[in-house]
Amino acid sequence: MSVQPQLINGEWRLAAADAATFSPSNPNTGKQHDVVYPVASAAEIGEMLDAGNVAAAQLRALAPSKLADFLNAYANGIDDATEELAGLAHSETGLPVEPRLTKVEIPRTTGQLRQAAAAAVSEEWTQPVIDSANNLRSRLESLGQPVLVIGPNNFPFAYNGVAGGDFASAIATGHPVIAKAHPAHPGTTRRLAEIALAALASSQLPPATVQMFYHCDPEDGELMVADPRLGAVGFTGSETTGRKIKAAGDAVGKPVYLEMSSVNPVIFLPGAMAEKAVELAAEFSGSCLLGAGQFCTNPGLILTIAGKATETFISAATETFSAAPSGVMLVSSLPSELNESVAKLTAAGAELLARGKSAAEPGFLAQPALLRVSGERFLTDPDGFQSEMFGPASLVVVAADEDELTVIATELNASLTASFYSATDGSDDAAHDRLSPIVTQKAGRILNDKMPTGVAVSPAMMHGGPFPAGGHPGFTAVGFPASLRRFGSLKCYDNVRPERLPASLRDPNPTGRMWRIIDGNWTQDNVGAD
Amino acid sequence: MSVQPQLINGEWRLAAADAATFSPSNPNTGKQHDVVYPVASAAEIGEMLDAGNVAAAQLRALAPSKLADFLNAYANGIDDATEELAGLAHSETGLPVEPRLTKVEIPRTTGQLRQAAAAAVSEEWTQPVIDSANNLRSRLESLGQPVLVIGPNNFPFAYNGVAGGDFASAIATGHPVIAKAHPAHPGTTRRLAEIALAALASSQLPPATVQMFYHCDPEDGELMVADPRLGAVGFTGSETTGRKIKAAGDAVGKPVYLEMSSVNPVIFLPGAMAEKAVELAAEFSGSCLLGAGQFCTNPGLILTIAGKATETFISAATETFSAAPSGVMLVSSLPSELNESVAKLTAAGAELLARGKSAAEPGFLAQPALLRVSGERFLTDPDGFQSEMFGPASLVVVAADEDELTVIATELNASLTASFYSATDGSDDAAHDRLSPIVTQKAGRILNDKMPTGVAVSPAMMHGGPFPAGGHPGFTAVGFPASLRRFGSLKCYDNVRPERLPASLRDPNPTGRMWRIIDGNWTQDNVGAD
Repeated sequence: MSVQPQLINGEWRLAAADAATFSPSNPNTGKQHDVVYPVASAAEIGEMLDAGNVAAAQLRALAPSKLADFLNAYANGIDDATEELAGLAHSETGLPVEPRLTKVEIPRTTGQLRQAAAAAVSEEWTQPVIDSANNLRSRLESLGQPVLVIGPNNFPFAYNGVAGGDFASAIATGHPVIAKAHPAHPGTTRRLAEIALAALASSQLPPATVQMFYHCDPEDGELMVADPRLGAVGFTGSETTGRKIKAAGDAVGKPVYLEMSSVNPVIFLPGAMAEKAVELAAEFSGSCLLGAGQFCTNPGLILTIAGKATETFISAATETFSAAPSGVMLVSSLPSELNESVAKLTAAGAELLARGKSAAEPGFLAQPALLRVSGERFLTDPDGFQSEMFGPASLVVVAADEDELTVIATELNASLTASFYSATDGSDDAAHDRLSPIVTQKAGRILNDKMPTGVAVSPAMMHGGPFPAGGHPGFTAVGFPASLRRFGSLKCYDNVRPERLPASLRDPNPTGRMWRIIDGNWTQDNVGAD
Repeated sequence: MSVQPQLINGEWRLAAADAATFSPSNPNTGKQHDVVYPVASAAEIGEMLDAGNVAAAQLRALAPSKLADFLNAYANGIDDATEELAGLAHSETGLPVEPRLTKVEIPRTTGQLRQAAAAAVSEEWTQPVIDSANNLRSRLESLGQPVLVIGPNNFPFAYNGVAGGDFASAIATGHPVIAKAHPAHPGTTRRLAEIALAALASSQLPPATVQMFYHCDPEDGELMVADPRLGAVGFTGSETTGRKIKAAGDAVGKPVYLEMSSVNPVIFLPGAMAEKAVELAAEFSGSCLLGAGQFCTNPGLILTIAGKATETFISAATETFSAAPSGVMLVSSLPSELNESVAKLTAAGAELLARGKSAAEPGFLAQPALLRVSGERFLTDPDGFQSEMFGPASLVVVAADEDELTVIATELNASLTASFYSATDGSDDAAHDRLSPIVTQKAGRILNDKMPTGVAVSPAMMHGGPFPAGGHPGFTAVGFPASLRRFGSLKCYDNVRPERLPASLRDPNPTGRMWRIIDGNWTQDNVGAD
């Protein structure tokens, strides 16, 4: 069995004969794949950093439309290989080919690449500002070095290090990407990297614009993050790993953008419950059970106030969770980790309301779980009861009254999202207005009458939040052009000669329609117009 | 001698009888002032954090125009007290009353407060983005907690924790400020805080919107930075202290914005030297000797290529530095620290070209210093030769040729600024174009034919740079509204009911002229217009 090559400086390079290796598994069958992948050595990582810096200097000299050509060609290449890619990803992640992979995630991924291409060309993310009286001109621009992108296990395309949102944002801002595949789906990532390499060739970008490795020793990874040859890091994954990567970057003042764990509290106020408890239970159960609950925006914490309607809601949800089939999970450890999380919460005093059906089939199967705890008990250990249960599981907290719910709200940890359901007749408005200022501080995205799963790729999205849900409260990992700004370095050109200025900072508007702030006003004019 | 009070939760509070104390000195005379200031206790810091959180919730409910009322009233109060403030600051910093304090720094400070007021009202910094099809609406908004602002010794007004740029940015974005006075000018800071408190009263803002202490145990300071009741930190000062504050914030994922040391390389290309070496020497000497060189943008590293014109430049600068009088420095340790820096460089192989005149007067006086080193020697220890010499001192590096200068450029550390002087006849263009991509990565502001001292308060300014000159490459500490964005938390409102949205995200344009991105276009229209 030969060891698969890594993509280093434009070449598919075989690892040294003594390289450590690993093989991923098929979550559908529970069996290991018959393919072997190498763990990158420190020397290989060093080569990628060197090549990435050479490519960064080359990209600096190119027009942004060249970056867009690549991103579009890459999106087309992925479209053409959709069936093959979906098959590969299904065999490595267990995610259903249809609709999930072919109808949802791959189109989202190519859509992101194309939106990033458009954002690169518009240069809106650079936010050019011109002060003509002082002849000062500023804009965001590339950091001038490669960006390391580390993707999670749960989105083999849309967040993949070599194809997802962070990848697209880094490329669109002129950065070569060094992608670390998630070791649970290296074959999918390898195939994507092949398509990327072909797209680089057809769009005449430096081949080292995209490099890829599968795995590394965690210590080598931390050294890579701290290496002066690396400009920034985009990471999506577990809090444990994310915190280590952040610490390595922080020590040298390097921007590290993180998207980590989140329990996504959903608050059902009493009036909403009274209006349609059964319907809300169906909405919640559907969101929580979707994709075996393997979303960072999975509703893992439900906050309610005791009452008859709340009991109706809980009964209906309990019924749905009890009848729910086991779900295929991404990696072998997840089903037992979910069981441990459930056991921890019941040991702490939560009641197990429902466990979904177990199954005799092979594979990494997890039974859905619904738990319940009183507000009083929750408040004895708010952090413990907010531990993320990754998978199709959620904890319903039943507060005695609005006062107790308000105390619970103040104890909420950071999340990506927080949702409010309230009555249509205004009867919940006072409670909402009391809770909202508290809850709004805790999450990046605030929803009304809506479940948090489903992250639209929109310029108005915030996918991030206070630490440790996100890494910096001011930036989003999803949505163009907003996600591009993370990788921007603000530069001021002070009295710089016109011919040396970037085109977007010269007097003439380079496209005739670029939005710039000139002397305090947003305009598409040239400097000196009117 | 009574101990001065601290400003805690709207009251001038006396410290406990057993509080540690200190007294500042008068740099003009070298004598200690006859006034005693307390070191804040951990309990007092805790009170300020609690009061700041209450005030933050109150500010959240107010219109931005109320913040502007305060900032404008405060600016007016400072204007009215200009002479008194300048006298106080002169006695604590040695900076000349005129022109520096009354004609330059105080007007700059009140100008900043008024620009921040205008930025608060325009809300441009919030960058509202509306996706009407998905009913997603995002904007930057307050972190909802107080911000700690720590000012440096060298600007008793324009960067003061209780009056400077970080203060103005934090207030304008809706954050209460807890200001730490620089212990070298506590009296100036106390008087400013009195004026601030009066302005808070007249504009009916919560009194805990501005709190102030003079000093603290470094360990208490680090605990304060890490405290969950604090939203963010703005720091200007030494790299040693800044790194500790950053580490404390990083460990808990808190935004810490830093502005630290910088040597500000200035590159004189041969053609420029040939055109006007003597004139350039005068320009450089004037910039370096200004204000005893106590600016973060002081030109501390001059890069040249060997030749006759370069020798002319060096001779002229040497003459100016030799004839320059000693300068009064801000604190007692600075003159001897400068001497140590000079001794360290000469020990490493630099030649001392000139030492300014020594003086018999009392006070914290430092003699200007000009040093020279060959490019070859510089390259034996690039980090050592880039140590900041705080004060009226600079090191001229004479490279053998353009190739050596290029190697030196790659060895440059991060700075706030980097300047190029080149010939008007185009003879330096090739050298410039070779060096520019390398040097541009190293600094936040790139200048042509201009010295780096003098930081315009402009929307197009970048005062910051790669770490450790700055704390985050994407943000500036100077210039409105750009400096406000540092303290913004990005929030997405997803399907949120219209009456619950912030005014700037509702369908109607709240002012009729606010710039927002609606469905991909910058516009001043309402949602649904056209």
